[in-house]
Amino acid sequence: MIIGLVSISDRASAGVYKDEGIPSLKDWLKSAIASPEWREELRLIADEQPLIEATLKELVDERGCSLVLTTGGTGPAPRDVTPEATLAVADKVMPGFGEQMRAVSLKYVPTAILSRQVAVIRKRALIINLPGQPKAIRETLDGVFAAVPYCIDLIGGPYIETNEAVVKAFRPKSAIRKK
Amino acid sequence: MIIGLVSISDRASAGVYKDEGIPSLKDWLKSAIASPEWREELRLIADEQPLIEATLKELVDERGCSLVLTTGGTGPAPRDVTPEATLAVADKVMPGFGEQMRAVSLKYVPTAILSRQVAVIRKRALIINLPGQPKAIRETLDGVFAAVPYCIDLIGGPYIETNEAVVKAFRPKSAIRKK
Amino acid sequence: MIIGLVSISDRASAGVYKDEGIPSLKDWLKSAIASPEWREELRLIADEQPLIEATLKELVDERGCSLVLTTGGTGPAPRDVTPEATLAVADKVMPGFGEQMRAVSLKYVPTAILSRQVAVIRKRALIINLPGQPKAIRETLDGVFAAVPYCIDLIGGPYIETNEAVVKAFRPKSAIRKK
Repeated sequence: MIIGLVSISDRASAGVYKDEGIPSLKDWLKSAIASPEWREELRLIADEQPLIEATLKELVDERGCSLVLTTGGTGPAPRDVTPEATLAVADKVMPGFGEQMRAVSLKYVPTAILSRQVAVIRKRALIINLPGQPKAIRETLDGVFAAVPYCIDLIGGPYIETNEAVVKAFRPKSAIRKK
Repeated sequence: MIIGLVSISDRASAGVYKDEGIPSLKDWLKSAIASPEWREELRLIADEQPLIEATLKELVDERGCSLVLTTGGTGPAPRDVTPEATLAVADKVMPGFGEQMRAVSLKYVPTAILSRQVAVIRKRALIINLPGQPKAIRETLDGVFAAVPYCIDLIGGPYIETNEAVVKAFRPKSAIRKK
Repeated sequence: MIIGLVSISDRASAGVYKDEGIPSLKDWLKSAIASPEWREELRLIADEQPLIEATLKELVDERGCSLVLTTGGTGPAPRDVTPEATLAVADKVMPGFGEQMRAVSLKYVPTAILSRQVAVIRKRALIINLPGQPKAIRETLDGVFAAVPYCIDLIGGPYIETNEAVVKAFRPKSAIRKK
């Protein structure tokens, strides 16, 4: 299984400051995923819509990622175009992820409603936009990841197992594979 | 009043297994609607977008349905195209139904966020996508139906009364008709 | 700072009854905004999509409004076209506002899910659709306004301070300006 991790930030990609998005995503996934065989594809790019679209397509279509997590670029500022780029490469839109991520973040900060995160299906991959801040990344992954393994089952991807101490993957009984 | 009930499933429509969607919708409506005169139009069809669109149009435009409930085809799998078909025949999108149905289902299962249900207005009809499982159909109808009668009032449809033991229709005082 | 207040109602704009939308918006803003220098631009117009679009463009592009609040026209009825007009002039859609406004109103009435309110960014302005009823206007502003000042910071608008007794503007520490 290959997971694409994409940090989208003008300043981090230009080296003005250190990217914290990809390390946060990696740490969380390392603690949460129990399946033995998976690796990441990492990308650190600027807030340019054509570049974000091309990166998402490459990760899904050429690298074969089953899951792509983006971080950054989901706010209201003019340079925040991650949701637009994600929707532009979508086969299907998954509105429940954005709704639930905002609802989760809203427990912590009222400005959570400014986040425009979306999730989509492209071919056999699930692409989810996450916030830019490490703390918010962890909070939202804690809030929605339980639904990710079954989603990837349904689109024909690999069977993901999780460390239940971090997050318990939920599947209907008929979809659970015995070891 | 005519209510269209549409079960969307490749396997049920091919006779591979028995459709449980329409019986669940019928049972719930029979218990919930107190208006004496209403009947259903039933359709059991495959997960084909053009067929779903044609069925929704026929039920609203030719049969004169004021309410159409669909079941099935709202997940992330490639054959799940009910929301796309529903949006394609919409005059107006009603985002609150999908949000609330997912919020209600989320109390039961974390994978509720994978459901892509929408509701729309077409002409003088409200069309609502419901989940495929009988249990989830009941839970979401319990969660949103209180708003359905007033919605149908507002689009020029018949006045629906409900059995308050099942669901209490909510209307502003000025919209309540005395018997 | 200039705030556009737009009441959208066929009957109020024709003088059939007195507009209650703009007075409600003004009262709430007067109590909530602590910044000394701001004024409103008021518009009372009919439920005509081209007119609503033209009004929103004029308020943002010519009058220089940083915030535009609309009231009315967000229901399911054929004449309710405020969300469509708002989306038509949008540079960016802000889904969290609509979700949160419906979630707030749902605490009061189950028909809150019939409200199709959206919020969008156009240039350097935030445009938010509010309900039509004075009570619902206050409830939803109470529910979402904490995120408005920081949103306007992010799109390059003026720094808004609030009366904390009414609503406490939330900003990350790095965005708070010392007096």
